[in-house]
Amino acid sequence: MTKIPCVFDAYGTLFDVAASARQAADEPGQEALARTWQPLAADWRTKQLEYTWLRAVTGDHADFWQVTQDGLDWAMERHGLSAPELRARLLALYRELAAYPEVPKMLRALKAAGHPCAILSNGSPGMLADAVASAGVGDLLDAVLSVEDVGVFKPARVVYDMVGARFGTAPGDVLFVSSNGWDVCCGAAYGFRTAWVNRSGLPLDRLPGRPDHVIPDLTAIPEIAA
Amino acid sequence: MTKIPCVFDAYGTLFDVAASARQAADEPGQEALARTWQPLAADWRTKQLEYTWLRAVTGDHADFWQVTQDGLDWAMERHGLSAPELRARLLALYRELAAYPEVPKMLRALKAAGHPCAILSNGSPGMLADAVASAGVGDLLDAVLSVEDVGVFKPARVVYDMVGARFGTAPGDVLFVSSNGWDVCCGAAYGFRTAWVNRSGLPLDRLPGRPDHVIPDLTAIPEIAA
Repeated sequence: MTKIPCVFDAYGTLFDVAASARQAADEPGQEALARTWQPLAADWRTKQLEYTWLRAVTGDHADFWQVTQDGLDWAMERHGLSAPELRARLLALYRELAAYPEVPKMLRALKAAGHPCAILSNGSPGMLADAVASAGVGDLLDAVLSVEDVGVFKPARVVYDMVGARFGTAPGDVLFVSSNGWDVCCGAAYGFRTAWVNRSGLPLDRLPGRPDHVIPDLTAIPEIAA
Repeated sequence: MTKIPCVFDAYGTLFDVAASARQAADEPGQEALARTWQPLAADWRTKQLEYTWLRAVTGDHADFWQVTQDGLDWAMERHGLSAPELRARLLALYRELAAYPEVPKMLRALKAAGHPCAILSNGSPGMLADAVASAGVGDLLDAVLSVEDVGVFKPARVVYDMVGARFGTAPGDVLFVSSNGWDVCCGAAYGFRTAWVNRSGLPLDRLPGRPDHVIPDLTAIPEIAA
């Protein structure tokens, strides 16, 4: 019998999106960033996501690399940071975000048990290729699905449709894993089996759809998928 | 010659969305709210808007009154507030938000100069009727347009289309005014003449479209429209 495919959101779920600003703040000469990297990282992420949703509503798509730069530009301006070298450094680090520590072992356990594993992400193919290479998990993934193939961001249904198109599965025969509450709720409303990685202990989003599992990190995924 | 119609966003632009939490925090017995009303109001607003965009992307529409309650429920849970009486009080106050102080005089000046004036809002018709009555500006408005007539939230193009349908104008012959950066950028990309009321001195959103005017409050609108 075929094992259920496990499909992961990338940014915030497998890869730590705050790592770029945190790491840059530790580098020499970044005293200004050291004071403000946490709200900067939060605003960068907030704007990056806002812009994906707004572009999905208007139909004015741009890829995630553009939207990531746009979000950073807004956040840097808000926090009084303007150095082009800092901007370039933050973006370079965003191309090689750290995976959360439990990721490689979890993926190896899923592979060993026979589960197909995939990423389904807003990220552009180039960004995802860089992140997967940097985290060293390429051999553990059967597919890296980017919204660029459909030209609209999550949570548009056509994005979630990519999973069935790739694996030949009905939504209820897929385990979809995301740390983003909105993504997991919309994925659940779409019909996926879902696990919400609630790393920060946030309230459940009040949206249609409700995750089947709420977990503090990815450790329990092989057990949930079994 | 007909004067250019002036079309206003409602929540945050004409009506102060933080007034509900601020006012409730001043009431007897609300010590817990008094400590946390500012982040509560910010999270309430953030989630309310997120839910409008996400529902516009998925097509799973619910009206703005539902989304306003959903956002409040998330924010109350995050800030450790759960009293049903407080929830009811905050929602009651949201039905009678204060207008910004310059609003009545500005609308009277536009009317005196012959400009048609309207609201174009995510709000449900009932919410908008309450807010307009509470602010006492009903006589100064030629139209109160709610997205409920098209069943999807801003910035979907069909929402902005409601203005031309009502006034028989091309987008470039309308002055659209919003305090929400995303709304004003998307309105500008749609083709409206636009003014962004940037009350908090925020950076310009990095979205397609750029406002023609950036103003700290609504005082200058009659001059801009002239």
